[in-house]
Amino acid sequence: MESTPVKLYVDDGSQPSRACMIFCEMNNIPYEKVETRLVKGDNRKEEFLKINPLGQVPAMKHGEFCLREGHAIMKYLHASFDCADHWYPACIKKRAKVDELLDWYHSVLRQGAAPVVFKTVFSKFFGMKFPEDEIKMHHKILKLSLKNIENIFLTDDFLAGPEICIADLTFYNEILQLKYVEYDLSKYPKLLAWCDRMAAIPEVQKITKVILSFIKAFLDKPKAKI
Amino acid sequence: MESTPVKLYVDDGSQPSRACMIFCEMNNIPYEKVETRLVKGDNRKEEFLKINPLGQVPAMKHGEFCLREGHAIMKYLHASFDCADHWYPACIKKRAKVDELLDWYHSVLRQGAAPVVFKTVFSKFFGMKFPEDEIKMHHKILKLSLKNIENIFLTDDFLAGPEICIADLTFYNEILQLKYVEYDLSKYPKLLAWCDRMAAIPEVQKITKVILSFIKAFLDKPKAKI
Ligand SMILES: N[C@@H](CCC(=O)N[C@@H](CS)C(=O)NCC(=O)O)C(=O)O
Ligand SMILES: N[C@@H](CCC(=O)N[C@@H](CS)C(=O)NCC(=O)O)C(=O)O
Repeated sequence: MESTPVKLYVDDGSQPSRACMIFCEMNNIPYEKVETRLVKGDNRKEEFLKINPLGQVPAMKHGEFCLREGHAIMKYLHASFDCADHWYPACIKKRAKVDELLDWYHSVLRQGAAPVVFKTVFSKFFGMKFPEDEIKMHHKILKLSLKNIENIFLTDDFLAGPEICIADLTFYNEILQLKYVEYDLSKYPKLLAWCDRMAAIPEVQKITKVILSFIKAFLDKPKAKI
Repeated sequence: MESTPVKLYVDDGSQPSRACMIFCEMNNIPYEKVETRLVKGDNRKEEFLKINPLGQVPAMKHGEFCLREGHAIMKYLHASFDCADHWYPACIKKRAKVDELLDWYHSVLRQGAAPVVFKTVFSKFFGMKFPEDEIKMHHKILKLSLKNIENIFLTDDFLAGPEICIADLTFYNEILQLKYVEYDLSKYPKLLAWCDRMAAIPEVQKITKVILSFIKAFLDKPKAKI
């Protein structure tokens, strides 16, 4: 069994960062959380650029081995530590169906959900403003994403079957973030039920506590102050 | 050895479709090419939606097993047929470095390159028009992508080392498409040298012949006619 400690460079506000932490928690993989705060510019510091020259979280260091990309990190940890098969099945066909979801996440779900939040909420903190057209485009992608999850992907308790897999972690953290914009998910009952299943997992609760408190504080603020 | 025939639903104008075909050609995987022309709406026909309800190419059918997503398809074929290790290495660390590239492709390179071409060239054929701001945004992502490939990724002959891997196929086909907009790549000498290495591969030449002739015809057309 692998015993070299895993360092995870993460920000609680980052969707794939939380996915990696939840994965470690649920698989009892001992990890050191290295807080890499984006708002403080920690991701642009020389020290961090040695870990990930692209300046993004999550990133991982395991011994001398550095890796970026949430999905790549979870797959690497799954292969290196003693994790249950359902997270990323060894069966070629089952694995392919998880890979399919992971690819789709990057090219569709995240292209809608992440910028909708960033370009309407976070942008304000950074003094940035984005054209309406651009935001509309992301909203369109987001709507299509949610429809596909509801009507095509969710045929069982979790995205790839009756048990949780790594795709559930990144998908969930992306959708969770939509609370920032009080996005109406009521048209998607299967998706909401799956969100409830995810939210009931103790390790998910532990890792999403910080972001949920950020979101609460943000929504409680008088709108004029933002 | 696997002997069930592989059906690939592809369009020669689709980047990940070409990547899958080149992968089969270079690995001697017998496949049936099922032309699924996007301009003809073949991807929206009932027959095809049974293979991929998302209505996109590439898609694969192997026996009764259906799969979408170019990367997932290539990984599945690599695991099912007798392919050289370098395409998607068994070594956990080497594989993780390929996965990292594949994830980045979806979230960055393709988000720049594909819409720059679609929203400035193909959109005309479909009678669509996209806001300038939106196109500018994609150009920004594309520039960042090319810089990263030049300055960070390309430290060897191919993206993940001295031998070709599946990432080279999708990256190359995305960048090839930039010929449509006569994109100036002269600032990226390492990238250009890698393009030349890719273009010299006979199977790459075989599969990209059709798209290169499309591009030539498009560029030869008097601009006023477009
Ligand atoms: N495709 C990457 C995405 C990484 C990413 O976009 N990270 C964001 C936070 S969620 C970041 O570090 N942004 C800071 C920056 O790009 O400067 C993954 O899935 O891990
Ligand atoms: N993430 C997918 C992308 C699939 C995709 O975008 N396919 C395009 C052609 S390159 C398509 O079928 N477009 C038609 C449509 O979306 O209606 C992959 O890598 O295979």
